[in-house]
Amino acid sequence: MSKRKSEEHDNFYHYDDRDYECKKPNCNVTKFRNPDGTLRLRNPHIKKLRDGDFLYHLALGTKSHNLEEMFGDVKFVCMGGTAKRMETLANYIMKEIGYKLPTGSTLQDLTSSSLRFAMYKVGPVLCVSHGMGIPSISILLHEIIKLVHHAKAKDPIFFRVGTCGGIGLKGGDVIVSDSVIDELGNPYYQQPVCGKLVKKPAILDKKLAQELKSLSELDDGFEVVNGTTMAANCFYEGQGRTDGAFCEYTEEDKMEYLKMLHKKGVRNIEMEGTVFAAHTYHAGIKSAVVNVALLNRLEGDQVTTPKEVMMEWQNHPQIIVTRYIKRHLQNSSTNGI
Amino acid sequence: MSKRKSEEHDNFYHYDDRDYECKKPNCNVTKFRNPDGTLRLRNPHIKKLRDGDFLYHLALGTKSHNLEEMFGDVKFVCMGGTAKRMETLANYIMKEIGYKLPTGSTLQDLTSSSLRFAMYKVGPVLCVSHGMGIPSISILLHEIIKLVHHAKAKDPIFFRVGTCGGIGLKGGDVIVSDSVIDELGNPYYQQPVCGKLVKKPAILDKKLAQELKSLSELDDGFEVVNGTTMAANCFYEGQGRTDGAFCEYTEEDKMEYLKMLHKKGVRNIEMEGTVFAAHTYHAGIKSAVVNVALLNRLEGDQVTTPKEVMMEWQNHPQIIVTRYIKRHLQNSSTNGI
Repeated sequence: MSKRKSEEHDNFYHYDDRDYECKKPNCNVTKFRNPDGTLRLRNPHIKKLRDGDFLYHLALGTKSHNLEEMFGDVKFVCMGGTAKRMETLANYIMKEIGYKLPTGSTLQDLTSSSLRFAMYKVGPVLCVSHGMGIPSISILLHEIIKLVHHAKAKDPIFFRVGTCGGIGLKGGDVIVSDSVIDELGNPYYQQPVCGKLVKKPAILDKKLAQELKSLSELDDGFEVVNGTTMAANCFYEGQGRTDGAFCEYTEEDKMEYLKMLHKKGVRNIEMEGTVFAAHTYHAGIKSAVVNVALLNRLEGDQVTTPKEVMMEWQNHPQIIVTRYIKRHLQNSSTNGI
Repeated sequence: MSKRKSEEHDNFYHYDDRDYECKKPNCNVTKFRNPDGTLRLRNPHIKKLRDGDFLYHLALGTKSHNLEEMFGDVKFVCMGGTAKRMETLANYIMKEIGYKLPTGSTLQDLTSSSLRFAMYKVGPVLCVSHGMGIPSISILLHEIIKLVHHAKAKDPIFFRVGTCGGIGLKGGDVIVSDSVIDELGNPYYQQPVCGKLVKKPAILDKKLAQELKSLSELDDGFEVVNGTTMAANCFYEGQGRTDGAFCEYTEEDKMEYLKMLHKKGVRNIEMEGTVFAAHTYHAGIKSAVVNVALLNRLEGDQVTTPKEVMMEWQNHPQIIVTRYIKRHLQNSSTNGI
C-alpha cells in the first residue's frame, strides 16, 4: 500500500465537507409542506407552463389526466430497480393490507406507454421501478415529486427497496440506511447545473430508519441492521470489483478500500442512495433506503447465488416496508384519518 | 448575467484539460486487439475466476453458456434506451439485411431472465437496451465487452442509437457525434476507483462518424449532422431544464448556458455518450453515437410531440445505422470474408 493511497483514505468521509452547509436534518419537512401536508414545489416555473406539465417518462400529465383524482390518496411511494419486482411488491402489499380490486379487474402498469418505468397503484401505495443508477432514479424522482404535488397527496413517505452488495453482512440480510455517502465519502449529491457544481445534502429520516429496523421479527430468518450506505455510479470499478471489463488495480487495493469503508461504518454499496436521499429531503419528503445484501463483498465480487434463493432474498426489504405501511394505515384508520 | 458566471463559462471545454493525456485517437484499437481481431481484455483477473465469469445483469456466463457458439459471429452491437426500441430495431435490421429465421421461430429476448436489459440477436447484429443514464449503460458496457471477448467475436463495432434534446436543430434531425463531453465540458469520463478519481478519454471514431453522416439520403425527410454531444447525469437540472421538481435558476441562466454550449459546437444533450465513448475506446472498440433530436432546447424544455410522430422520429438513427451495417455486410461478402 503506497503512502499516497493511505493519505487519500484518511480524507474519506470528510472530503470537502467544509462546503457542506445543511445543519438542520428536519428543516425541509416543515418548510416545504403546506399546513394540510401537501408539497410546496420548489420550482416557480411549473405554474407558468402554458400547456400544463407533462411528465414525459411517466406518460402522465396535468392536461391529459386528472392527477388529483388518480393519485390524491397516495401516502407511500415504493421505488425499486426492476419492473417485475415492483409488480410483485404491489401484489404482496395488496394481500397484506387487504386491499380489494373489483371482481374481474387486475393491477395495471400505469406508465406502460412511456416504455421507461413501470408503476402500480394499490390504494394509498404507489410501487414504481427506477432502473439502475443515479441518473435513472433522478428522472423518476423529479417526475414523482411533481406527480404527488400535482395530485395534492398529503405527507407522502418514500421508500427505496433494493438490492446491494453487503460489507461484512451475509447474503439475505437487510440494511436500513441511516446515512448515505458517495464513493469519496461525501454525504451529498453533487451535480453540475448550468455549468456550476451544486450540492444537495443527502439526508434520510433517522427516526423512520430506526422504526423500520424495529420491525424485524425473531423468526424472519434474516438480520435487519442500520448503517451507512455508499452509492456508486458504477457496478464494477466504482465499487472496487475486480471482475469488470477493466481492472487496473489489485485484489489488495480492493480489500484495503472495502475494509476502510467498513471501518467508517459503511455496511453496503448500491447505486441510487445519494440522489434518493438528497432529492426527497430537498422536496421536504421523509424517506428511507432499505436494501437486501446479495453477497458479502469482503468475500467476493461475482453474484452467483442461485436465482431462486436471490428471488426469495429480494422479498426481505419488501416484508419490512410492508409491515411499516400496514402499521401506519391501521393507526390512521384507528385515528379516523 | 453576473461576471462570475461569465468567467465560469469561459473555462468550459478546457476545464482541467492539462490532465488529459491521450494524444493518439486510434492507438487503442490496434493495442487491444489480437491479430485476428478478437479483443484482449484489459483485466488480468478474469482468467483467474475459478468458477468462470457470470455476467450477472445479462444472466449469461462462461460456465452456463457456450458464448463462442452463441455470439462468436457478432460484428455489430447496437445499444439504445428501451427494450421496445431494441426489439423494433432487431426486426427492422432482420428485414433490411435479409436475415431469415427458420419457419415457426421468432426473435427471443436473450437476457429475459436477468429482468434488467433486453437483448436480441439477428445474425451478426446484437441489439440491446441500456436503460437511462451513465451508470446503467456502464454496467451493460462492462458485460457486453466481456461477452464479445469471451465469444471471440472479431473487430466488433458498437453503436448507440438514442434520443436526445437538440440545440439549434429541429425535432427529427439526427446528430452523429464526433466528440462527447460532460456538463462541464470535459472530454472524458471520470469516476472514483478505490477512493481515487480516474479519467478515461471519451474518444469516438471520427472516420466512422463521417461515414455514417454520408449515408443520409436526399428524400429521407430529416437532416444528419456531425457535432459535439454533451452527456448529462440528469434530465432536468443537469440539462438546464426549468420544468423539473426543483429549479433554482432563471430562464435567462438556462438560455445563456444553452447558447454557450451551442457556440462551443454542442449540438445535442443526452445521458450516456461520455462513458459509451470512453469504455469502447478503452477496450479498443470502434464506436459511434447516433441520436435523434426530440425537440430543440433553444425553444423549450417539455417533450410534448405527439407519440406517433416521436415513434417515427426514433426510427431515424436506426435507418442510418442499418444502412451502414448493410453496406459493410455486403462488402464483407463481396470480399469473401
